[in-house]
Amino acid sequence: MNSQAAPPLKRIADSTVRRLSLYLRFLEEFETAGLTTVSSDELAARGGTTSAQVRKDLSFFGSFGKRGLGYQVAELTQSMRRILGLERDWRVIIVGVGKIGAALAQFEGFQQRGFRVVGLYDSDPAKVGREIYHLPVRAIESLSEDNREQPVDIAVIAVPASAAQRVVDQVVAAGISGIMSFAPIQLHVPADVTLNTVNMAMELERLSFALSNRE
Amino acid sequence: MNSQAAPPLKRIADSTVRRLSLYLRFLEEFETAGLTTVSSDELAARGGTTSAQVRKDLSFFGSFGKRGLGYQVAELTQSMRRILGLERDWRVIIVGVGKIGAALAQFEGFQQRGFRVVGLYDSDPAKVGREIYHLPVRAIESLSEDNREQPVDIAVIAVPASAAQRVVDQVVAAGISGIMSFAPIQLHVPADVTLNTVNMAMELERLSFALSNRE
Repeated sequence: MNSQAAPPLKRIADSTVRRLSLYLRFLEEFETAGLTTVSSDELAARGGTTSAQVRKDLSFFGSFGKRGLGYQVAELTQSMRRILGLERDWRVIIVGVGKIGAALAQFEGFQQRGFRVVGLYDSDPAKVGREIYHLPVRAIESLSEDNREQPVDIAVIAVPASAAQRVVDQVVAAGISGIMSFAPIQLHVPADVTLNTVNMAMELERLSFALSNRE
Repeated sequence: MNSQAAPPLKRIADSTVRRLSLYLRFLEEFETAGLTTVSSDELAARGGTTSAQVRKDLSFFGSFGKRGLGYQVAELTQSMRRILGLERDWRVIIVGVGKIGAALAQFEGFQQRGFRVVGLYDSDPAKVGREIYHLPVRAIESLSEDNREQPVDIAVIAVPASAAQRVVDQVVAAGISGIMSFAPIQLHVPADVTLNTVNMAMELERLSFALSNRE
């Protein structure tokens, strides 16, 4: 594998990143199955896409594989992990420990990818001080000081829509610059903060769209 | 507004559908704020995209608005709802009432969009028969008969990865043709079944990618 200097990444589409995540999962399957090389055709077939799409997606990040020989599974797996930022651990806190926050706190899929939940926060005095899955729930007011002592990479926001912007402002003020929000509302953050929103209702709308418009 | 016959929808990109969902939310905001018309520029500014993108996204579904006059907010809102399949109620069941399934069962955002959770299913005898948010948990084995009596539109799969394909096979065998899965695994369904996967770890990977590659 050759991994040349990659071009600037600013304009990588969201859909491309989603496919990289899928490719990584397929590569890990291939590795588990004992395969050492894989072609772009095989990777495409596994993911329901085209080999041209696979090659284009990878081309944003350098030159991988050899013509006619395909990709080395182990090396491409490692490259995908590096590109996706998975060669390190990420310190994650969850703000809002209602039903969804509590479910996320123990979600195994996070741990497996190096997203380590290191803190839980809530504004409800009845919840602060309690333990959820071996982590104490702390008051949102202590976030700034906590973050100075042990900086956090990502804050997962799982509070009601009505509280979300205020909580995001507190998270930003505390100096945390990666945010994933589950609140069903558009949030505003400074340009140097990265925000990713997961909207469950919108996910269902993708499905109702597909169901309404299929033959 | 003119709404001419729309072209076939088979090739509408996922990213387009996601933007339609966002446009609908912005239009609803505008409507709440008392606006009666909106330009593609205003819609674009609200969503951090370009007016050309807005016009292109809408053009897949017909001809909306008038040159120089913009869009009628109420009419475009209604069109977006129709296109996204939101002018009707959808009967939804949740299969797997662990932490995530239970959280989804009471998620208000679903109800607001007409996704009515009408049934809960689990394979765990300890859970079957219990009530969660006023709905009894039923045995997965009763799904086929239940669906014959009162057909379900969408099954939300919230079981562990190891059980997901088996459960999906049961859902498909029961005659349900819309599936949303939260299981972190690639699932296989017949061509006439529509499957949408939400992968929490992949959502975090979009964030770690962005955080790793920003300036």
